Amino acid sequence: MNTSLLKLASIAILSSVIAACASQTSNETAQTPLRATGDMGVVIERATGQVQIVNHTHQEVLAEIDGLGDLSHASIVYSRDQRYAYVFGRDGGLTKIDILKDKIAKRVMQSGNSIGGAISQDGKLVAVSNYTPGGVKVFNSETLELVATIDSSILTTKPKNKDGSPVRSKVVGLVDAPNNKFVFSLFDSHEIWIADFSTIEQDKTPKLTKFTDIGLFPYDALISPDGRYYIAGLFGEDGMALVDLWHIEKGVKRILPNYGKGQQKLPVYKMPHLEGWAIAGDYAFMPAVGRHEVLVVNTKTWEQVTAIPAHSQPIFVMAQPDNRQIWVNFAHPDNNTIQIFNTETFELVKTLTPGPAVLHMEFTPRGEHVWMSVRDSNEIQIYDTKTQTLQKTLKSSSPSGIFFTSRAHQIGL
Amino acid sequence: MNTSLLKLASIAILSSVIAACASQTSNETAQTPLRATGDMGVVIERATGQVQIVNHTHQEVLAEIDGLGDLSHASIVYSRDQRYAYVFGRDGGLTKIDILKDKIAKRVMQSGNSIGGAISQDGKLVAVSNYTPGGVKVFNSETLELVATIDSSILTTKPKNKDGSPVRSKVVGLVDAPNNKFVFSLFDSHEIWIADFSTIEQDKTPKLTKFTDIGLFPYDALISPDGRYYIAGLFGEDGMALVDLWHIEKGVKRILPNYGKGQQKLPVYKMPHLEGWAIAGDYAFMPAVGRHEVLVVNTKTWEQVTAIPAHSQPIFVMAQPDNRQIWVNFAHPDNNTIQIFNTETFELVKTLTPGPAVLHMEFTPRGEHVWMSVRDSNEIQIYDTKTQTLQKTLKSSSPSGIFFTSRAHQIGL
Repeated sequence: MNTSLLKLASIAILSSVIAACASQTSNETAQTPLRATGDMGVVIERATGQVQIVNHTHQEVLAEIDGLGDLSHASIVYSRDQRYAYVFGRDGGLTKIDILKDKIAKRVMQSGNSIGGAISQDGKLVAVSNYTPGGVKVFNSETLELVATIDSSILTTKPKNKDGSPVRSKVVGLVDAPNNKFVFSLFDSHEIWIADFSTIEQDKTPKLTKFTDIGLFPYDALISPDGRYYIAGLFGEDGMALVDLWHIEKGVKRILPNYGKGQQKLPVYKMPHLEGWAIAGDYAFMPAVGRHEVLVVNTKTWEQVTAIPAHSQPIFVMAQPDNRQIWVNFAHPDNNTIQIFNTETFELVKTLTPGPAVLHMEFTPRGEHVWMSVRDSNEIQIYDTKTQTLQKTLKSSSPSGIFFTSRAHQIGL
Repeated sequence: MNTSLLKLASIAILSSVIAACASQTSNETAQTPLRATGDMGVVIERATGQVQIVNHTHQEVLAEIDGLGDLSHASIVYSRDQRYAYVFGRDGGLTKIDILKDKIAKRVMQSGNSIGGAISQDGKLVAVSNYTPGGVKVFNSETLELVATIDSSILTTKPKNKDGSPVRSKVVGLVDAPNNKFVFSLFDSHEIWIADFSTIEQDKTPKLTKFTDIGLFPYDALISPDGRYYIAGLFGEDGMALVDLWHIEKGVKRILPNYGKGQQKLPVYKMPHLEGWAIAGDYAFMPAVGRHEVLVVNTKTWEQVTAIPAHSQPIFVMAQPDNRQIWVNFAHPDNNTIQIFNTETFELVKTLTPGPAVLHMEFTPRGEHVWMSVRDSNEIQIYDTKTQTLQKTLKSSSPSGIFFTSRAHQIGL
């Protein structure tokens, strides 16, 4: 073997090592792209158990992740650093997605049937509200280890489950509130509970405050942007239940006695989402139940001021971040339409028909754009809020909820 | 040369290449730590021309960057992805800091004397308000290339500058407003201008709307969180000037006729910062000028409701994100003290003495903690807002402004 051959052999080895090295670096880079997280989001693709990771500056899809189970009615909250999205699946799956590495960081099956969740003010706890078995489970946001189980009230009139356990009330309308509290409603037992986790590290168990007989079948709830007012809609009767969290000693107050289906028992195609309520200035803009109206309510007196005629039965009523306009989508069979109203004059600004099944809307944080999921045309549409014109369309498989990372910074979202 | 020798030589080469490869990878990783940006911030170290990059989940300093020039009175805005902090220095320096790479991405000297800046709703433009020469310069947020220069009004009664150019009004109170507008005040010419950049790409120049005779010497301003009301304080007379940006046809309205030094011409140790104004529920909580009071103003009528007695002359009056309490710091020589008041009862909750020269406060986005810069003890102190107790202290060199990345998502910040 001569020196030339040695050189040749060495070069060959060197080249392959360098190639491997470059490939490793490039994989590392590909796995961990340098990303700030302020302009990111996650879109639920409900039919396929997938989510898309998106960027709303460049208006693009960055990645798609699968294996999330049943995502019908799924929702998302973010870790306080905006790195992790917690996806609450309908099948009881709780999935923690790493949006810097585009992969699932952790996943647990935490119940048989779940309807939503929240993250605590300090970001350390993730709570999930469950239908089956009824109650709330609270997890360490980092490890997804169970921290607490809050069993809901036993329904003594119902026969026991097959496994001999008692049937418990379904839990809905779970939100976070200041001072590491979670607030939620018990559908079957007609209650609102507050679970205070501010001393969980010492006490190992949350402090519970229970309001009973709050009204028949609370089905969903919202909390005001400052975390003061918790309001639950009632499925079993007209009116709503309000708790002033600054004065829980005053108990539950009944408001808006006419809110609901009314005496005529209108056909209701879908109960509206209360989380979407727009609170703009002195007014709350609320989807009427079963009526073709958006209700305008004074947030001081919680009395109805007026009703705005709308295209159909509203589902989400969302205010732009500048509060100047509200955007409204509608129940089936009119869910191909969006209407935009002026919050000052209550006038109709524009009617859009984005396409079949407009399920959700999300505004960019300062409000220049709004993203819409149009499920049955497999599209996300992006509109300019000032001109209400379509700017861009992204492909998505049966998109439903759209959640931007700015939610990490907002109480109740 | 035998096969063994070849092997040995090859292994030697291989080892050195692998070592180089590993070292490169490790440097790359060190240069670009994997970070989400939702829980980060930047602290101004005013005496040394430095800034600290901080994390408010782990309550730690991640990096320190120098070479930023004169940082007295410096402020910061963030890119919409939260990756870049734009630092406005007093010496006219505009510095773009990359908080993922812990380094200066770009720096320009854009004027001789500057007082603050803002970023547009769409994140594409950064505007700086200047004293010398008076006016506003607007830059491409990515490249820091000049996009527009807005010269302020010429002061015809003043002798010209040494270079023969006319003296122009100083510009103060620059904020961003919805639809890619900037609003600012002209101190010497008693004006408020609106610069509309929504069609800058076609028109190459902004549309200007000018309000004249708005009151004597506007010295600072704020915009309400929804971007609707722009309010300027007046140095030359009592009262304030308000523009309703939803109705600019109505012109400037004069409000709070008694706001200011009053007839007794009290000694004013420092004019308060208006950006710190707390708007909580129906009330604005404002630092009185020269008086030991926090004023409570109805935001519907813009009339004073009451005055809360305070320790000294207030500078910043800041509301917690849940609006439950306001935190107040004071002018020299009483700037070692903080007072906390209940926004509902107006009662004093607690008086703290963090140390000499408490210059600024910043709440974590959901409000569980507040960070304070204590300049003359070279400390950042972190308090729990619920218990108002000190949680942790970080070292910092003459810290002044503290700016968390959640500002990226808020109109006017």
